[in-house]
Amino acid sequence: MAEIERQPEEFLFRRIGVVRSVFKAKFGIPRQPGLIPEAVGQIVLQPPYNQPNIVRGLEQFSHIWVLFVFHLAMRDNWKATVRPPRLGGDKRIGVFASRSPFRPNPVGLSVLRLQEVCCRNGKVWLEVQGLDLLDGTPVLDIKPYIPYADSLPDASGGFADAPPEQTLQVTFTEHAAALCQTIERHSPGFTELARKVVAENPRPAYQDIPGREYGIFLGDYEVVWKADGPAATIFDIRPGEKTH
Amino acid sequence: MAEIERQPEEFLFRRIGVVRSVFKAKFGIPRQPGLIPEAVGQIVLQPPYNQPNIVRGLEQFSHIWVLFVFHLAMRDNWKATVRPPRLGGDKRIGVFASRSPFRPNPVGLSVLRLQEVCCRNGKVWLEVQGLDLLDGTPVLDIKPYIPYADSLPDASGGFADAPPEQTLQVTFTEHAAALCQTIERHSPGFTELARKVVAENPRPAYQDIPGREYGIFLGDYEVVWKADGPAATIFDIRPGEKTH
Repeated sequence: MAEIERQPEEFLFRRIGVVRSVFKAKFGIPRQPGLIPEAVGQIVLQPPYNQPNIVRGLEQFSHIWVLFVFHLAMRDNWKATVRPPRLGGDKRIGVFASRSPFRPNPVGLSVLRLQEVCCRNGKVWLEVQGLDLLDGTPVLDIKPYIPYADSLPDASGGFADAPPEQTLQVTFTEHAAALCQTIERHSPGFTELARKVVAENPRPAYQDIPGREYGIFLGDYEVVWKADGPAATIFDIRPGEKTH
Repeated sequence: MAEIERQPEEFLFRRIGVVRSVFKAKFGIPRQPGLIPEAVGQIVLQPPYNQPNIVRGLEQFSHIWVLFVFHLAMRDNWKATVRPPRLGGDKRIGVFASRSPFRPNPVGLSVLRLQEVCCRNGKVWLEVQGLDLLDGTPVLDIKPYIPYADSLPDASGGFADAPPEQTLQVTFTEHAAALCQTIERHSPGFTELARKVVAENPRPAYQDIPGREYGIFLGDYEVVWKADGPAATIFDIRPGEKTH
């Protein structure tokens, strides 16, 4: 062990880019990537990483891994156990048995569908789909998804063996539907995105207060809704620019 | 962008444990995890992370992600392109289109089969299978593998769509076979491990010098072999403790 103990204990990593995402606040972000294909965004590389060469060949891959920092989950203290929403929020499991953002090293891992690799006007960015990341998330690394090594369909996933059920049936009021139609002109797919994000039932499992209003910040808007049992109603779309 | 630019650009991460592996030197390590199930080892958590609570529930998962540091690939300079061995070593692709250890942030990602979660005598460690990691590798994070989110059997993998072919047919000399039999008494599976590691043809693609001796450090031994076309011969097993 002597040799190992001489190794460094701390490592300094540098941001290579940022995520531009429709998700402008934590509330409402899907709990895993790929759940909502309409959730699109960009990984924008920053200098000195904004070189076309650095992503050469990446366009051959359908999916990428993004390693990022849970920058709003950085705390001085970590806890050995967490309460995942999938378990109702009242059962504790070890932080290393979870994908919680509150971890000893707040590094996250998401697989995203790669739509396009773009190099234009000195800028280099990736158009991605199925985002579960907050706007402004610092990115540390991008790797190609290699199916023969990364895809293990027979792996067993403990309490997370199946995707979360979409528990809410979403309807729009006439007022909200009309606003969505207007927004669709410059943001096609907004209605479907809003519907799916609410359908994921982002409320904490232990919070089921009928009639309580919730707001989810999507793009330039706040989607306002309430739930009653298994039904949710989107009743307003407001201009909104929540910055976390 | 103003708000994003106020975010920190650098992040300090702390080692949470180290890898104990049969691979004592870089040469011979499989190029992806899972290729050699006989490659077993441990992820040993270090204080203050060596708490049984921190891995509570992890035993329900068949596989884990390990985020680690390529500690022997840390360089002051990164290059925008690399030459992956899969492409013959003479074609350059972008570093973000590769899984090369030489990256702007030298963070690696491996999925390993989890055999056992062990908490004994104040120690906490994970027994893992299918290792592609060097002994002493610093570990930053452990996450459960969640099949519904992480497994994408239909993803397309560019130049890495299929696993590498095992190009070498391996035979043992009588001398080497006898030594392996002795080693099997305290290290069961050693012979098969040696065979598979050599069969992976770890030589750089552009290096095919008939008769040249190669040594691979496995556990407490050095496996000595040479290749001639598609055939390899393991002709000696020596005591060996290469420390990188």
